[in-house]
Amino acid sequence: MRAITFSDQLRFEDNRPEPVVGDGECLVKVRLAGICSTDHEIIKGYMGFEGVLGHEMVGDVVAGSSAWLGKRVVSEINCVCRKCDMCLAGLSNHCRDHTVVGIAGRDGCFADLVVVPEANLHEVPEAVPDESAVFVEPLAAAFQVTQQVQIDARSRVAVVGSGRLGLLIAQVLAKTGCKLEVVGRNPGTLLFCEKKQIMATSVDALIARNDRDVVVECTGSPDGFRLALALVRPRGTIVLKSTYADGAMPNPAAVVINEINIVGSRCGPFAEAIQALARRDVDVSSMVARAYPIERGLEAFDASNKPENIKVLLKVNPQ
Amino acid sequence: MRAITFSDQLRFEDNRPEPVVGDGECLVKVRLAGICSTDHEIIKGYMGFEGVLGHEMVGDVVAGSSAWLGKRVVSEINCVCRKCDMCLAGLSNHCRDHTVVGIAGRDGCFADLVVVPEANLHEVPEAVPDESAVFVEPLAAAFQVTQQVQIDARSRVAVVGSGRLGLLIAQVLAKTGCKLEVVGRNPGTLLFCEKKQIMATSVDALIARNDRDVVVECTGSPDGFRLALALVRPRGTIVLKSTYADGAMPNPAAVVINEINIVGSRCGPFAEAIQALARRDVDVSSMVARAYPIERGLEAFDASNKPENIKVLLKVNPQ
Repeated sequence: MRAITFSDQLRFEDNRPEPVVGDGECLVKVRLAGICSTDHEIIKGYMGFEGVLGHEMVGDVVAGSSAWLGKRVVSEINCVCRKCDMCLAGLSNHCRDHTVVGIAGRDGCFADLVVVPEANLHEVPEAVPDESAVFVEPLAAAFQVTQQVQIDARSRVAVVGSGRLGLLIAQVLAKTGCKLEVVGRNPGTLLFCEKKQIMATSVDALIARNDRDVVVECTGSPDGFRLALALVRPRGTIVLKSTYADGAMPNPAAVVINEINIVGSRCGPFAEAIQALARRDVDVSSMVARAYPIERGLEAFDASNKPENIKVLLKVNPQ
Repeated sequence: MRAITFSDQLRFEDNRPEPVVGDGECLVKVRLAGICSTDHEIIKGYMGFEGVLGHEMVGDVVAGSSAWLGKRVVSEINCVCRKCDMCLAGLSNHCRDHTVVGIAGRDGCFADLVVVPEANLHEVPEAVPDESAVFVEPLAAAFQVTQQVQIDARSRVAVVGSGRLGLLIAQVLAKTGCKLEVVGRNPGTLLFCEKKQIMATSVDALIARNDRDVVVECTGSPDGFRLALALVRPRGTIVLKSTYADGAMPNPAAVVINEINIVGSRCGPFAEAIQALARRDVDVSSMVARAYPIERGLEAFDASNKPENIKVLLKVNPQ
């Protein structure tokens, strides 16, 4: 099968062996897949991953449980044991023995076929086209912020970073009615916010005075954390969304002195994301800059690093 | 007056001018004062402070409001405006325009006399001797942990760092009945814990497997944060108590992936600390290694850096 893989370098492979389906697993034929910043970090060495990249996709179940056969699906990315203390405590996203599709210990979805646990699948309703469904995974990660932190109409909130994830988080938070401001470097994505009546400010024009109740850091760089510390009020909350290969957080004295609450935030609720797309609460289609056939995957990776392209998709088996 | 000061270096001064008492302030004649790790960090450059050091003391009000005259007192260290948004929101410890006794913008208590706002004073009950009262400020900081994080008999808690603050925090947390373990490097302070039936483990003998609900980091070094990340369970809480001049936190990927909650924690409730000392819930007297007259303050600073001395006091005007 065709696949985009990473070991010492990023490669398009034309003749990768098809994956083997295990007990409780399904084989999904990928329609569309999305390139995410995490994919770029993996290429820089993050997680030490080797294999088929990719964790955002929509596709069709072609083998495995008969209950799922033929269904159009998206898949959660954490593959878990359901036996360890974390799984039994209802925190299976933090399973002691988990693998992560295309990120840790398990091949991903930048390929014709991907194997995922049956329990990870969600059927996509008809109202959600493929070009939207491919956003379910990152949109769920955006919804996770509202699961972890109380945000309402009184909350003063800054989203630091106007990249792919930042724009999804901004749209989710805008629905809470909070006093929202997106801070970024990219004029194109700041304009995207303004078109949606979301206040957007260039980082160069920003005056940070420690007055936000909540700051969501999704820049993907240590500088974002420094800016978040300058924006958040004493006793306020910083939600950390960025993972990156290199870089440390600054000296924690400001965290202690201002008694800041830092909340790490990762994967989120697929059901909420699917519903939001079905109701058209979130606009993802205008985030898609380009879609490349999988054979041109390396070109797609380059394109997805350019600031003018918010989201780049891979057409694997488009319908 | 006599004072221990820091500008480019630590000095004992014999002829420092007496401080001037302003409106709403009281003049306190210091009996005993305590040397804290923060004092050592200030000497390394933390906060860029210059002036009279010291923020832990017990003394007698000798000038200012008649209501306080002659009373034996301890003093909170944050001096606030009571007008800014933080003060009006009930978060006056985070006043926008605050000074901190002996730490930021205001002379401290390693001197015959110190000026503090009347509103900062707490009278010391007779049941609390001077040698205990001098611990109210750091003990309040220990109680702050229980104000910020829910800890009960089910909680698995590690205190990383068995120094001065670690031993106070451990004693406070032990009263909650939680499953407590102190992790440290100093055999003497680990023995102190064991004598109080608090489980204590040398960092060299520790097997960290991400299974603690709460980890309190009070080592005063970036290594402590790394160990805390190895101890805390996914979705668990790290309470950060350490402030230091140098050093950064590690790459935040583990915070994001494991969705850790980090809570900065600083000053705490004086009333609770005073009550705990009056009830003898916490043993501070056996933490005192030595007490030096203020003239030998530099020697006292050296002594308080030695692992065999848990707490070193300065006798300024002992009764």
